[in-house]
Amino acid sequence: MTTYRPLTAETVLAYLDDHPSLKARLGGDRDAWTAREVSDGNLNTVFIVTGPAGSLCCKQSLPYVRVDPGWAMPLERTLFEARWMQTTEKTAKGQIPALYHVDEGLFLIVMENLGHHRVLRDMLIGGTAPAGFGARIGEFIGHAAFATSWRALPFEDVFALREIFSRNLALTRITVDLVFTDPYRESCGRNRWLSPDLDVHVRALQQDHGLRLAVERLQERFLSVGQNLLHGDLHTGSVMVEGDDVRVIDGEFALYGPLGFDLGMFIANLAINAYAQPGHSSWIDDEIRLVWNNFRRAYLDRWDESGLRGDVDSLTRSAPSLARRTQFFQEVIQDVAGFAGLELIRRTIGFAQVADYDAAPDRLAEAEARMRAMSAGRVLISDAARIDSPQHLLDYLRL
Amino acid sequence: MTTYRPLTAETVLAYLDDHPSLKARLGGDRDAWTAREVSDGNLNTVFIVTGPAGSLCCKQSLPYVRVDPGWAMPLERTLFEARWMQTTEKTAKGQIPALYHVDEGLFLIVMENLGHHRVLRDMLIGGTAPAGFGARIGEFIGHAAFATSWRALPFEDVFALREIFSRNLALTRITVDLVFTDPYRESCGRNRWLSPDLDVHVRALQQDHGLRLAVERLQERFLSVGQNLLHGDLHTGSVMVEGDDVRVIDGEFALYGPLGFDLGMFIANLAINAYAQPGHSSWIDDEIRLVWNNFRRAYLDRWDESGLRGDVDSLTRSAPSLARRTQFFQEVIQDVAGFAGLELIRRTIGFAQVADYDAAPDRLAEAEARMRAMSAGRVLISDAARIDSPQHLLDYLRL
Repeated sequence: MTTYRPLTAETVLAYLDDHPSLKARLGGDRDAWTAREVSDGNLNTVFIVTGPAGSLCCKQSLPYVRVDPGWAMPLERTLFEARWMQTTEKTAKGQIPALYHVDEGLFLIVMENLGHHRVLRDMLIGGTAPAGFGARIGEFIGHAAFATSWRALPFEDVFALREIFSRNLALTRITVDLVFTDPYRESCGRNRWLSPDLDVHVRALQQDHGLRLAVERLQERFLSVGQNLLHGDLHTGSVMVEGDDVRVIDGEFALYGPLGFDLGMFIANLAINAYAQPGHSSWIDDEIRLVWNNFRRAYLDRWDESGLRGDVDSLTRSAPSLARRTQFFQEVIQDVAGFAGLELIRRTIGFAQVADYDAAPDRLAEAEARMRAMSAGRVLISDAARIDSPQHLLDYLRL
Repeated sequence: MTTYRPLTAETVLAYLDDHPSLKARLGGDRDAWTAREVSDGNLNTVFIVTGPAGSLCCKQSLPYVRVDPGWAMPLERTLFEARWMQTTEKTAKGQIPALYHVDEGLFLIVMENLGHHRVLRDMLIGGTAPAGFGARIGEFIGHAAFATSWRALPFEDVFALREIFSRNLALTRITVDLVFTDPYRESCGRNRWLSPDLDVHVRALQQDHGLRLAVERLQERFLSVGQNLLHGDLHTGSVMVEGDDVRVIDGEFALYGPLGFDLGMFIANLAINAYAQPGHSSWIDDEIRLVWNNFRRAYLDRWDESGLRGDVDSLTRSAPSLARRTQFFQEVIQDVAGFAGLELIRRTIGFAQVADYDAAPDRLAEAEARMRAMSAGRVLISDAARIDSPQHLLDYLRL
């Protein structure tokens, strides 16, 4: 196995030159290739390598957080991303980048370069995202979730998959801390917010005992209820778009958890865009409906297929129950509401924030947007169990 | 590592003679030892070996089900029992047999021989179980469940434990099939019941579509909701009693699952005894109350301890909420009700039945007892979500 060393724009070329199948994708000789570092996530190094015949995206873990080198981080995270891609590509082909190569020693993955795609968050901020992208994300979540569920697979297969991703400890720890804990702790130095504008509101949120109890219930669900494999970090920065071609990337946070987690995260990131750019509200309202409706349809399509091998539902497969399905989606929407609430808050006062707020026209508008996100987040978390439809969720979001 | 071979009463002596620490527990020479096969569970071979200084219990897996040699079964099950004992002995010391030795090649465990204890089921049938044993079982479940929960352990430790027991596939498959599936299938040849007495009732049960839907919901909870490590097969045949000394044995079915599963199984087995021997009803009613109340107290005692390291509840640990705890135990009692209902039915018409029914005074009384169990089981499964207190559960059981 290769010994780990961080690659540079120079050494990545040498590496690719040693691998004939990758070499063939680039075409020509090494002299004709160029490598460009484009790392823009928080954690890893990314190189785009271009040759006469094509291009590749090379992603490597660093032994620390790229944007905070004092924060040590195990290297395995790239391998979990590879496993997520291998699991997901079977049922969501064309909705994630193609995976070409994994090097378990270098903690390196080489995949399709989405050269003409742009990050959805940037396109939302710029107002250039093609209307209807929400439908593709809803379908993606529905297909990927169903394929790894207890309905699709015998429990032995689910246990085996869950076991793989149960080792994804470092990134799950980030979620447990940054999403479910830090923002609700007055003493947490990793939090930051627009100050003094939000000081009073943040203090009120952090002193709300009822809210903390509701957060803990959601944390317990996140950890203990494994309905299917999650992407685990599905925000608008994890989606690349080119026209109708919508891809989900960065699955390194993948783990088994409640279905509503990915939907809630994604919808919350859409809502933040609308708070920061109120002119987008009606568009974002449409996209959120498309996410939900297409998720629901995609999940139901798979549920109706013959040949399902799962243990769950095996007794009633020949005579499915409408009431059961209605109840199932009601439980999912409750989770969506609660997890969306958590995401609204942590992206507004926590460690990892979002660029949408910078697009607000002025400081007053930014403060207003952040307050709307915090306020919607609080009521969604507290009232999650009462929310029973996507319309009801939208009423709470008040876009 | 030792190569697997099934031990006999003769070869088990030679094996112990090769292990000084076990030899010392028996005392004297091999000539002074006697080995007696006492296998009475469905799956494994068990020898009691006695020497001048003491005795040992040796339990070895066979590559098939002991009572049905045509049913192949992987050997690992004894190792899962050993891992369950190693995990449980830390917090339930004195409530399980002491584990002395594990041989991973022979799939053999050597443990404390409970020479003067008797199986609780036999003592219930004989009317000789000491009143109050239910308190010990409740405490055991409360302590063992809390110690492996998300409240007691950081999620990393829970993931690691859950991963170990996620490999317990063969025995989990038995539970999935025998408890959650077979009894509700008309075509399942493994079912058996008192015929023709129960024919009409079994047919009605197996044609109840609403019941099947409710069974599937419980199966989904069993597989997907991992609250803590379960014993997984906690019936009255898995408990040994001598006076106030109550031990839980046979943890080979251990896996992560919903807390209410062990409680529900155990309570259902108590109820079956009362149905078969109506003179026991008031006694069994008392024991069921003791199980629940002492489970609740034991779990709360641990929950109140300082120094908890779990991620869940970390935000409110300094100011626990009574409402949260009330809600938690209400959710547990709903699961208890549902899983008790499943156990009542599968022990009455499924593959693995119980001896209590043979203690009914005559066939009419046995049929009556079995019908009461089936009928209570059906309503418990269907109404589980409405049951909100142990009294309510007892109202449904109608002992």
